[in-house]
Amino acid sequence: MGIFSVFIFILLSSEDGFQTKWKADEHGILRAPSLYNGAFSTLAFIVGAITSIVSGYLGMSIATYANARTALEARKGIAPAFMVAFRSGAVMGFLLAGNALLVLYVLMLVYRQVFGDDWEGLFEAITGYGLGGSSIALFGRVGGGIYTKAADVGADLVGKIEKDIPEDDPRNPAVIADNVGDNVGDIAGMGADLFGSFAESTCAALVVSSVSSLGTDQVWVSMCFPLLITATGILVCIGTTLVATDFKPARVIAEIETTLKMQLIISTAIMTPVAYIVAAGVLPAEITGLFIDDMDRVVKSWHVFMCVAIGLWGGLVIGLVTEYYTSNTYSPVQDVADACQTGASTNIIFGLALGYKSTIIPCFIIATCIFAGFSLAHMYGIACAALGMLATISTCLAIDAYGPISDNAGGIAEMASMGEDIRERTDALDAAGNTTAAIGKGFAIGSAALVSLALFGAYVTRAGITIADSSILDPQVFSGLLVGAMLPYWFSAMTMKSVGKAALAMVEEVRHQFNTIPGLMEGTARPDYRRCVEISTAASISEMVPPGALVMLTPVITGTFFGVRALAGLLAGALVSGVQMAVSMSNTGGAWDNAKKYIEAGASEHAASLGGKGSDCHKAAVIGDTVGDPLKDTSGPSLNILIKLMAVESLVFAPFFLAHTKDGLIFQLFD
Amino acid sequence: MGIFSVFIFILLSSEDGFQTKWKADEHGILRAPSLYNGAFSTLAFIVGAITSIVSGYLGMSIATYANARTALEARKGIAPAFMVAFRSGAVMGFLLAGNALLVLYVLMLVYRQVFGDDWEGLFEAITGYGLGGSSIALFGRVGGGIYTKAADVGADLVGKIEKDIPEDDPRNPAVIADNVGDNVGDIAGMGADLFGSFAESTCAALVVSSVSSLGTDQVWVSMCFPLLITATGILVCIGTTLVATDFKPARVIAEIETTLKMQLIISTAIMTPVAYIVAAGVLPAEITGLFIDDMDRVVKSWHVFMCVAIGLWGGLVIGLVTEYYTSNTYSPVQDVADACQTGASTNIIFGLALGYKSTIIPCFIIATCIFAGFSLAHMYGIACAALGMLATISTCLAIDAYGPISDNAGGIAEMASMGEDIRERTDALDAAGNTTAAIGKGFAIGSAALVSLALFGAYVTRAGITIADSSILDPQVFSGLLVGAMLPYWFSAMTMKSVGKAALAMVEEVRHQFNTIPGLMEGTARPDYRRCVEISTAASISEMVPPGALVMLTPVITGTFFGVRALAGLLAGALVSGVQMAVSMSNTGGAWDNAKKYIEAGASEHAASLGGKGSDCHKAAVIGDTVGDPLKDTSGPSLNILIKLMAVESLVFAPFFLAHTKDGLIFQLFD
Repeated sequence: MGIFSVFIFILLSSEDGFQTKWKADEHGILRAPSLYNGAFSTLAFIVGAITSIVSGYLGMSIATYANARTALEARKGIAPAFMVAFRSGAVMGFLLAGNALLVLYVLMLVYRQVFGDDWEGLFEAITGYGLGGSSIALFGRVGGGIYTKAADVGADLVGKIEKDIPEDDPRNPAVIADNVGDNVGDIAGMGADLFGSFAESTCAALVVSSVSSLGTDQVWVSMCFPLLITATGILVCIGTTLVATDFKPARVIAEIETTLKMQLIISTAIMTPVAYIVAAGVLPAEITGLFIDDMDRVVKSWHVFMCVAIGLWGGLVIGLVTEYYTSNTYSPVQDVADACQTGASTNIIFGLALGYKSTIIPCFIIATCIFAGFSLAHMYGIACAALGMLATISTCLAIDAYGPISDNAGGIAEMASMGEDIRERTDALDAAGNTTAAIGKGFAIGSAALVSLALFGAYVTRAGITIADSSILDPQVFSGLLVGAMLPYWFSAMTMKSVGKAALAMVEEVRHQFNTIPGLMEGTARPDYRRCVEISTAASISEMVPPGALVMLTPVITGTFFGVRALAGLLAGALVSGVQMAVSMSNTGGAWDNAKKYIEAGASEHAASLGGKGSDCHKAAVIGDTVGDPLKDTSGPSLNILIKLMAVESLVFAPFFLAHTKDGLIFQLFD
Repeated sequence: MGIFSVFIFILLSSEDGFQTKWKADEHGILRAPSLYNGAFSTLAFIVGAITSIVSGYLGMSIATYANARTALEARKGIAPAFMVAFRSGAVMGFLLAGNALLVLYVLMLVYRQVFGDDWEGLFEAITGYGLGGSSIALFGRVGGGIYTKAADVGADLVGKIEKDIPEDDPRNPAVIADNVGDNVGDIAGMGADLFGSFAESTCAALVVSSVSSLGTDQVWVSMCFPLLITATGILVCIGTTLVATDFKPARVIAEIETTLKMQLIISTAIMTPVAYIVAAGVLPAEITGLFIDDMDRVVKSWHVFMCVAIGLWGGLVIGLVTEYYTSNTYSPVQDVADACQTGASTNIIFGLALGYKSTIIPCFIIATCIFAGFSLAHMYGIACAALGMLATISTCLAIDAYGPISDNAGGIAEMASMGEDIRERTDALDAAGNTTAAIGKGFAIGSAALVSLALFGAYVTRAGITIADSSILDPQVFSGLLVGAMLPYWFSAMTMKSVGKAALAMVEEVRHQFNTIPGLMEGTARPDYRRCVEISTAASISEMVPPGALVMLTPVITGTFFGVRALAGLLAGALVSGVQMAVSMSNTGGAWDNAKKYIEAGASEHAASLGGKGSDCHKAAVIGDTVGDPLKDTSGPSLNILIKLMAVESLVFAPFFLAHTKDGLIFQLFD
């Protein structure tokens, strides 16, 4: 990250040859030299990265405390255990959202002192904050994803399949690595991902609006509209949380999923009028300068509200659709469970088909958000739709963090031999957690798509690409589009292979320990947990380098050698293809996981007819679950980072490309 | 198809209200009324469809004769069996290519009499030929794909996994349906697909060039350049075939794959100078009017040759890359086989990763073809690159048809109890056939991508979309792009689910027969083959309706309600996303199939260490193979049709959209 900061500093500062003089533009406003842009973008990058790291650290600390407390409370019953897990998730959600917002606002206040009236320069430099946040998300999602699934797959392949010992059994040497992994991937990774989305969508909105009348009229509170949406969102979510904790908490297993789902619905419903009040209150009645092809076109404040509302409700619908496709209370997952009767192959075929099918509605919703946002307020509208989708981020993080907390509470119950009934309770909490985790992933990918498009819009504006330059009939744009659509495949191939390789190393270590440590299977000797943690750590760090390099280098190389138009095509291609892959991968994985849980629990007559734990049907389901692990927890969520990080990086480097390599070094050679 | 013809006729004829008067344009050329366009487009559609059906019928007849003869020759040894299978494939290849070319040329001659000097009208009407061909390909690929895989998966699930009887055992009631399916899907489907590509790329080239100086100067032989490339390609392929049949035929197993691969390399190498001679001979030295944004820009004849050559060699490289990823002589498939040691899950994870990875090089090659073709001669260049890739179509069809012929020869050997050694020979022929079938699929998708783009270009020209109208910054275009990228997922979900459902029905029937027909397992009673054939037939016909409707209705609905720009985005999105999915699906499937064969054959020390038939490793490989069946033989190849058919349909209906619903009925309502 240090090397990358230096890189950013040099490339951005070099734009006008490291000058230090301020120059007045045609309106008489003093503009900061590019050295300022370089220095303060780098500073914002470092602040964003540190904020993300601190958030991740705090999130993981909270989750670690919460795991044990949830397991203890499970002795008393479902309701108290649920309450602890949910409250801890909520604490984490508010902490992350508040932290992200506070740091960004302080940064803006400081930069305002530095940049004076040069608001364009100010907000361009602020973009570094988003880049910093998303770079850490790369570590969290890719590295964390490899960490957690190497441990999980490795533990399952030997423990469950070869040795026939239960999940989270303390005799399994990889069990600690598996528990650590749940925290790393699902808490830190998810937190960093949504933190990045929040930071980037806010930055994109700020950059786009800084050239509009919002920026030129210099009304600070209007410029801060994106932050106010997030701030009021936090308050709304705090209010909503009271419903689950005080008014109508879940008391039995069947209520858990509904309670969590209601959190989302209520916060969305309350947020809608709040967003209207904020828009009417702080935005001027008319904004101009948002449409790059018609600078005089007027955008009214209620247009902006509409964009926020569409994002808000769009996110909710994506969440509910995700729930429909991944919860075992509905027919899609039950069909997959049925398919296990004819073996693992049909399970895999039906699961893949389910994932593909689950992209349809989210895709139409994102397309509607894009179309409406774009038509109402151009790229600012899309950024606002993204902010609307993220307005309920605290609730989203709360119900998402609830999943791994319950999962690990189950692990602790098993390892501490707390008894069958307590394990059953934590399992029920965890099944609902799988579904809410999938909902969280739906939000994450939906907002990532909108954020990327907003960043893409800001990039296009900043790179001086005209409408005619970005035609799909342009050979550079179309070739870029095709190559961009391939990138999610390349990236996923890397991450899946990494998980596979790391899992094989883990399998060997676990087998080795079972064979060499006498008394391990009998429970009289202790396995070497540390060795497995080390394997996961080493694998996640070394294996994340190639996919990380692909993400970080592709925009720079494309922009430098093939020009800004090819890069525009590439970003668009990666976006449209990545969204589908990410949605289908997380839903396929979630469905397999819950199909397995459906067969295990055997709660209904139909479920019981499938044979329960240990049956052939269950074995087929376990194979699907294992395949789904890297799809839903490594490759799928990492794709969010791929599309966001490439877009924000292009935006940060756009001034450099524009100044030096607009048509691409390779084509400049031929000219 | 009949209903659809009426539909085409009415929509196209209505453009100017069913007038019958010819009108002179500004150059004094008499232009045919739209009634002519409607009537002759419909006629061309019917002729295209019939030609495709006849080709498929002839192909299947040849294959059926060849199956039995190959099995008989296998008694004498590998060399004579290979010779029969290969020669039959070649006969089929030449027949299909020649047939397609002859009918198209006769149609052009007839239409020339009708349309007189109105070449634009002439070649627009000819486009119906491509649409007809591709519509039949929809039946062949989707219906045929469902047919063959329902039978195959159903036969395997009960026969191999439950009853532990060998593949193609005559006691298995689904065995005949499986053999029929190989012919339907791989011979008729592949033939119809490549026939469609050929017809469409030629039509696209003709339409695009009819408005250039090639068309306005009215030099018939220059206009016929695309047909001459195909015609000389057939001659070159005939020459190349002699190498495999007379000069250097395969005599041992290890030589089969090399011999087939050499066919492609030699025909490509010879075709290159031939294409140059044709281009230099029939094209004028300078062509103008190909670049829509710069009508005076000059394209030289060697530019056109370069486009053909890039497509020609690009196709070869795609073929060789496909071979690398799907043949079990290279490390990727061997890695997948290794992964079977830790179970079916790791096999699936590694196989999926292999498929994703295999998209990288083909994608760069297609992007290069697009960029070079576009830069050299705009959309005509892309159509010529597609024709170049298809110039070796006869060789391609020959080595592709070789696969199912050998496969079924093995089936006949097994059913006729011809002995273990003969079965081993046919298995070896078949393993090479799996790889060459994958090569054929690589060609098919590569050429489909180029063809679709050429059709897309023709559509854009015809629908009056300007460069500024097709910007990715246009909200309609971008939303279209996103929804388009989702269509291959929707389509694949349908086709995979169809195969799953049909296979389950087949499983039940096969189980039922094993349980109710006494003496079936002992071989004393005959199963009811007819019933299984009926199930496959009924399933393929009823299950192909929803995906077929998706393909046929999407362009019409999008163009009518959301306008030509949304449709342009949709086509581009479907193209860039469909290519990746199709390539990864066929290669993943091919790799799983050959990983299984690698373990079964145990030819090398490493392969033998995996345990051979019946081992746990082999069982894991069988699961992968079964999952791969619908991917490689149904969903993957069907995607070619999705992207081509939507593009050609949009082109055919472009005049209708332009006249009535340019901005979309929905948006017109709001205005």
